[in-house]
Amino acid sequence: MSLALAESPWPENLTPLKGVDNLLRCGICFDYFNIAMIIPQCSHNYCSLCIRKFLSYKTQCPTCRVTVTEPDLKNNRILDELVKTFNSARYQLFQAVLDSPPISPPT
Amino acid sequence: MSLALAESPWPENLTPLKGVDNLLRCGICFDYFNIAMIIPQCSHNYCSLCIRKFLSYKTQCPTCRVTVTEPDLKNNRILDELVKTFNSARYQLFQAVLDSPPISPPT
Ligand SMILES: [Zn+2]
Ligand SMILES: [Zn+2]
Ligand SMILES: [Zn+2]
Ligand SMILES: [Zn+2]
Repeated sequence: MSLALAESPWPENLTPLKGVDNLLRCGICFDYFNIAMIIPQCSHNYCSLCIRKFLSYKTQCPTCRVTVTEPDLKNNRILDELVKTFNSARYQLFQAVLDSPPISPPT
Repeated sequence: MSLALAESPWPENLTPLKGVDNLLRCGICFDYFNIAMIIPQCSHNYCSLCIRKFLSYKTQCPTCRVTVTEPDLKNNRILDELVKTFNSARYQLFQAVLDSPPISPPT
């Protein structure tokens, strides 16, 4: 997706998807998961790099503070697939909305 | 969501979301994940009941055949949240499409 489109606000008729978008973001960097890792003992997820950096400083989950060490982390690959698939859908839906005439006249 | 709406085909302008829909379904029952469990050694996911029933018969992942026993299973709670959030978004988007006039005349 072009940066301009990635950063553009959600068109009003697509706002129901914002909740899905939020769930696919890492609580450390707030960007989409990049190589998502799950902490099996609490079910929280972070980017691989984000959580490894955090654990090198403090051996706990940043969200719920359960004790975690690096070998606990497991890939949560379906989140990587969801990020990819959701972003491609988002791109197509944004394009369709931008290509269609506005419902209310621009001010 | 009403059954009729849940079962209705995807409106053409929302088909980009079908890929997301597919990822949120269990490979055993083909319905949306219901209490999603991850197999940490292979990263595959199934409904809790579906995979437990399967493992009582054969101790392997139905997709990749890696050896699995019930204590290996861990909750993948973000998938339950994604199913809920995605379905609510889908409901709102379907309603908006059904409420708006068709782009091409009905045959
Ligand atoms: Zn991150
Ligand atoms: Zn946690
Ligand atoms: Zn199932
Ligand atoms: Zn597997």
